[in-house]
Amino acid sequence: MMKPLNVLSQAVNKNVIVELKGRREYRGVLDGYDPHMNVVLRNAEEYLEGQFVRRHNLAIVRGDNVIYISP
Amino acid sequence: MMKPLNVLSQAVNKNVIVELKGRREYRGVLDGYDPHMNVVLRNAEEYLEGQFVRRHNLAIVRGDNVIYISP
Amino acid sequence: MMKPLNVLSQAVNKNVIVELKGRREYRGVLDGYDPHMNVVLRNAEEYLEGQFVRRHNLAIVRGDNVIYISP
Amino acid sequence: MMKPLNVLSQAVNKNVIVELKGRREYRGVLDGYDPHMNVVLRNAEEYLEGQFVRRHNLAIVRGDNVIYISP
Amino acid sequence: MMKPLNVLSQAVNKNVIVELKGRREYRGVLDGYDPHMNVVLRNAEEYLEGQFVRRHNLAIVRGDNVIYISP
Amino acid sequence: MMKPLNVLSQAVNKNVIVELKGRREYRGVLDGYDPHMNVVLRNAEEYLEGQFVRRHNLAIVRGDNVIYISP
Amino acid sequence: MMKPLNVLSQAVNKNVIVELKGRREYRGVLDGYDPHMNVVLRNAEEYLEGQFVRRHNLAIVRGDNVIYISP
Repeated sequence: MMKPLNVLSQAVNKNVIVELKGRREYRGVLDGYDPHMNVVLRNAEEYLEGQFVRRHNLAIVRGDNVIYISP
Repeated sequence: MMKPLNVLSQAVNKNVIVELKGRREYRGVLDGYDPHMNVVLRNAEEYLEGQFVRRHNLAIVRGDNVIYISP
Repeated sequence: MMKPLNVLSQAVNKNVIVELKGRREYRGVLDGYDPHMNVVLRNAEEYLEGQFVRRHNLAIVRGDNVIYISP
Repeated sequence: MMKPLNVLSQAVNKNVIVELKGRREYRGVLDGYDPHMNVVLRNAEEYLEGQFVRRHNLAIVRGDNVIYISP
Repeated sequence: MMKPLNVLSQAVNKNVIVELKGRREYRGVLDGYDPHMNVVLRNAEEYLEGQFVRRHNLAIVRGDNVIYISP
Repeated sequence: MMKPLNVLSQAVNKNVIVELKGRREYRGVLDGYDPHMNVVLRNAEEYLEGQFVRRHNLAIVRGDNVIYISP
Repeated sequence: MMKPLNVLSQAVNKNVIVELKGRREYRGVLDGYDPHMNVVLRNAEEYLEGQFVRRHNLAIVRGDNVIYISP
């Protein structure tokens, strides 16, 4: 069995998709996280309803908006 | 009597349906969970309003979006 | 006086109606619960806006969606 | 001064109106409660947007949906 | 400096306006409160979107719906 | 570095704008606050969607509705 | 690995974008923060649905509205 936070731990420095409420999505490199599922993304592309919005060198995404994180 | 987390424990490595708020559904193998009902799914198909969206090799789904988990 | 969790305790192995937010309803046998009102239902029929959706052999319903549980 | 939970305590075995979010209302006898304002109602009539829906011999109503309880 | 709960304490037995989410308003005498801002109102008039709905001899209003309380 | 509550502390007795969810805004003198960002406002003007609604001699605004406070 | 709060710590005194729920955005200098991701912004421009609304010399933005902070 894999605990959710252990899976996040193994995903550090890898590409992840972070899906948020409100049809918002980030695709970037997972730089870090905390137990609330707040995540740090590097080189992250932001999409809103499937449309590219902008690129972030670094972004701290708040965990309570997260639907899923897919490594 | 079966405690909810014990039922989750017995469902590890089995196929589950995870229904989320916003008509979102995942069907895959339960890889793990934590007491917040955050779950790890393997080989998960994602559906939105009944339509197939994509497949995830691995996905961490945040518990506070969960409506039910059906083993 | 009856504490809410004591009423749940007496309803184990009996038929219950579980009404959720979003006009979602389950009718089945209460298999278990925890203090967050997460419940385990057996042989549960799921209804959405009054329409039958599907039957679950087993379902863990997350407590924070519950409006009421009626034994 | 009357603490909210003391007022609930004095309302046990009396008729109460419980108003929930989403224009949902219950009228019945207060059988019990806990500090989260989860309440147990006996012989409760359920109304949705002012229309009678059904009667519950017993219902556990989850506190986080409550707007007010009127003894 | 006045702490919010101290202001509530001084408003006991005085007329208050309690504004809730969803354009709901109560005008009555503050009978009591607790640290969650659950309040007890006496002789309270209830208004919905500015229209008078009903009068409550006594009502326990749950704090998490409160927008403001004005003594 | 300025901690958010320290900034609030320095704003006591000064004019502040308090922006709430639902396009609601208060402009008044900050009389006090607590760690939940519940605030006490004196001589506060209330605006809804930019329109003046009323004036409050004193208002306790619940912190969980706050978007920002601007001293 | 970078913890989210450490990234915030390194962003103090730098320009950040703070994206909130409801298509609200702030661009300003990060003056401080706390573990709830409440942030203090200096010289902050506020945008609503992409339109400039106003400038704040100082603003305390409540963390539970934050979607992301981008240094």
